[in-house]
Amino acid sequence: MNTPPVWSVDARTGARTAEIAVEADSAAVDLAVRDAHAAHPALADRGRRAAFLRAAADRLEADGAALIAAADRETALGTARLTGELGRTCYQLRAFADVVDEGAFLDVIIDHADPAAAPAPRPDLRRWKVPVGVVAVFAASNFPFAFSVPGGDTASALAAGCAVVVKAHPDHPETSELAAAALRAAAVQTGLPAAVVGLVHGRQAGVDLVRHPLVSAAGFTGSIPGGRALFDLAAGRPVPIPFHGELGSLNPVVVTEAAAAERAEEIGAGLAGSFTLGMGQFCTKPGLVFVPEGAAGDRLEKALTGGAAEAAAGPLLDGRMREHFLAGFAERSALPGVSTPVSAGTAGADGWAVSPGYVSVPAGLVAGEQERYQALLEECFGPVTVVARYRDAAEVQAVLARLGGNLTATLHAEPGEEQAAGWLAALTPLAGRVLFGGWPTGVAVAPAMQHGGPYPAATSSATSVGGSAIERWLRPVSYQNVPQQLLPAELRDREADGAGAADGSGSRVPRRVDGVLER
Amino acid sequence: MNTPPVWSVDARTGARTAEIAVEADSAAVDLAVRDAHAAHPALADRGRRAAFLRAAADRLEADGAALIAAADRETALGTARLTGELGRTCYQLRAFADVVDEGAFLDVIIDHADPAAAPAPRPDLRRWKVPVGVVAVFAASNFPFAFSVPGGDTASALAAGCAVVVKAHPDHPETSELAAAALRAAAVQTGLPAAVVGLVHGRQAGVDLVRHPLVSAAGFTGSIPGGRALFDLAAGRPVPIPFHGELGSLNPVVVTEAAAAERAEEIGAGLAGSFTLGMGQFCTKPGLVFVPEGAAGDRLEKALTGGAAEAAAGPLLDGRMREHFLAGFAERSALPGVSTPVSAGTAGADGWAVSPGYVSVPAGLVAGEQERYQALLEECFGPVTVVARYRDAAEVQAVLARLGGNLTATLHAEPGEEQAAGWLAALTPLAGRVLFGGWPTGVAVAPAMQHGGPYPAATSSATSVGGSAIERWLRPVSYQNVPQQLLPAELRDREADGAGAADGSGSRVPRRVDGVLER
Repeated sequence: MNTPPVWSVDARTGARTAEIAVEADSAAVDLAVRDAHAAHPALADRGRRAAFLRAAADRLEADGAALIAAADRETALGTARLTGELGRTCYQLRAFADVVDEGAFLDVIIDHADPAAAPAPRPDLRRWKVPVGVVAVFAASNFPFAFSVPGGDTASALAAGCAVVVKAHPDHPETSELAAAALRAAAVQTGLPAAVVGLVHGRQAGVDLVRHPLVSAAGFTGSIPGGRALFDLAAGRPVPIPFHGELGSLNPVVVTEAAAAERAEEIGAGLAGSFTLGMGQFCTKPGLVFVPEGAAGDRLEKALTGGAAEAAAGPLLDGRMREHFLAGFAERSALPGVSTPVSAGTAGADGWAVSPGYVSVPAGLVAGEQERYQALLEECFGPVTVVARYRDAAEVQAVLARLGGNLTATLHAEPGEEQAAGWLAALTPLAGRVLFGGWPTGVAVAPAMQHGGPYPAATSSATSVGGSAIERWLRPVSYQNVPQQLLPAELRDREADGAGAADGSGSRVPRRVDGVLER
Repeated sequence: MNTPPVWSVDARTGARTAEIAVEADSAAVDLAVRDAHAAHPALADRGRRAAFLRAAADRLEADGAALIAAADRETALGTARLTGELGRTCYQLRAFADVVDEGAFLDVIIDHADPAAAPAPRPDLRRWKVPVGVVAVFAASNFPFAFSVPGGDTASALAAGCAVVVKAHPDHPETSELAAAALRAAAVQTGLPAAVVGLVHGRQAGVDLVRHPLVSAAGFTGSIPGGRALFDLAAGRPVPIPFHGELGSLNPVVVTEAAAAERAEEIGAGLAGSFTLGMGQFCTKPGLVFVPEGAAGDRLEKALTGGAAEAAAGPLLDGRMREHFLAGFAERSALPGVSTPVSAGTAGADGWAVSPGYVSVPAGLVAGEQERYQALLEECFGPVTVVARYRDAAEVQAVLARLGGNLTATLHAEPGEEQAAGWLAALTPLAGRVLFGGWPTGVAVAPAMQHGGPYPAATSSATSVGGSAIERWLRPVSYQNVPQQLLPAELRDREADGAGAADGSGSRVPRRVDGVLER
């Protein structure tokens, strides 16, 4: 066996701590996918699926100490943050169990036969959604739980009735193995095959996974180059599959003159807190902030400088990320005319520690010289942000027009400001989530969340957080003139469905019947 | 100007009747897209959009005689069929107006702020869907109205608030121009810019359209090679866009032993009617029919032979289609062991007329020799079908396992048959619509319709017929902590929205508020 070993590495020292697994070769990927494919029909029962998701949350909580210890060693994100992230992950699993129980995601539509219908006689039609099959999930570096093995892609795919094969992130293989074991134990405990959750390691394994004929869809959170390469593979297959990727986001922020005048210190300090949170390793980190010229903007920058200078140094997730971060900061701060009120740099001799920094760009530069300042309009992962001073709204608009898509766009304005509506309208085409005040870091797990956005923020219009994330793993099917007794309970007439309606088996899902929405 | 002319051709004679337009060069495509992009914000008002769709239906009806005459000359589909198709098209436009008025498609979800929420304090979040921008629509050869300029893609995109640029099908340029003129007149009459509907001719124009940076999505109905080439272009763009294509479908039919015994003549005659309908030029034509060996199956074939032999000859849509059809029939009937109870052929000296035919394959052949009989598992456009006799269910299953995705799959079984449920379960993964009895030709315009299916039936999981078709042209956006007065009426609290709720302006859309579905 000459498949390379997979090492767990201590993120604080850069030292290898244990050999966790081996990279999956093509045969191993094929086996994992076939096992998942054979297992996925067992997920057809909604009640069991919901029970499984809840059991998975319970099991992750029970294994919490070991999971958090492994994740902290592998990512250096700290136990406080990781405890919160595990809580969020378990909440998410239970929230999807509720989504499964309610059944609105099935989008049941029933049109009874109507021989007198316009424009032509209509057969009996009943539409709902079925799981797509096996889903490939690509774990993210920066969320070892919430966007990795037990994260939102896995939870939503299982909730949809799909088995998953996760490609572990190399930054946390041990955490991945522990989490997968917890999920598989929960499956078995609920009477499901363990193979509803598979796990593979290795870059080539990810490629093989996306190419596998029995994989029907993929979810991804990561970088633009990696995500785009996999998206291209998914689209280029003989049978293309949907690839729901979250690739990168600059997360622009516009601070109006009035907001700066009113709340300069609060905004400056808030920005410092947001761009350094989790060592800037959030996909929602504000990366470009438009601040007005003049005294109010200067006050804002002063508060930002104070906050950023005081922000703690700390390790990034891995060495490659540190290299990219330092090179990215150097490239941006070397641009002509740009200043670096707080300079980022290495911190300490061990591990991958860095200190936060930010660059400030005088008004007119970015809008005036597009080519030269292009780097400022691109994401740089890690604790860095760019403050672009501006003279007037037209200057901001000119820069916004050149941005790619974003997960978020934020407006700091005063509620009564006349221009606020115009700014919201200008920011909406740029992002999946538009904030009025506050900061984009922090993504609530809630039904109304949209975590996605125009490319490259996402490769589809779907959300990867919140109940609607389940939609990615479903496909509608209509049944025409199928006799009641051959239909699934959710598609039967309720009069005809005495058992289902009476025993609370969950067949009473929200539906649209003959055009009318019913609960 | 050296752009080639676009000719209208009489489908019954093959003769050019008029020069209609010129092919759009890159500059012309660019202009059409820019005009559409500039026009699309005018569609933001839902009330006006609904009025426009209804005015478009009225205008198409008013221009019906001219439209039907042009379409009949260009397609030879006959005035009866075209009258029906235009009625269906107008019904569809009005049905989408109702969808716009109701507003359920906006998928409004509101989560009020909750400082005590688990797993973390929650901001105020309000999610709905916004139009994606300009949509490119590729018209189909075989439906000059219902899947062309004024068809389902256009209607659903306009309903979503998107402007469209249609790439006309070369088989009916005059019909396309007349229909576009009707739509544009309706727009102007409703106070909208005419440019919400653009029209271009020419193959390269289609390529330019899919590549244009201001085009945000595409809808397509046509062939596998053409559709796949455009899909690849859409996915390969620097900013990929969704490409909702309907490419091809074999539409398998399984007739059980019991159904054949009970209804051999009815099924045989029904099949003859279905595969010859519209000269077999439906994407839902049954192309592979599994019929049991033995006496009942023989009776079925006898009825099929009678019906197919009596079916009228008639012209296909164009000369290329006739060539493909004749070559396809010859290829299939030349396979060893295959018989041709009714042989297709040319009919008459003029135009593109052909007569229907079918091939019959003895049991065991298709299941036994995969490579050799592959052609029988591929769509052949035009009035031809393949009857595959079978010995047992396992033989049918073996062939079904090799099929690509389909728009439809049909089961002819007796309601009480024990195996019926198993057959429905086996057919569901193959198709977007599963029929119990009847024939797949005939696609009801109804909320519960699913017209789509696994690739190559469709390149996405969307439907192109029925109210859900609007979903293709929308993108979700969440607003976080945005003050009530800056939100669209549909996202405001109803207490705070006195005006909207009271004046019936349409702001009372179905919503999910704090987890509860509301009408």
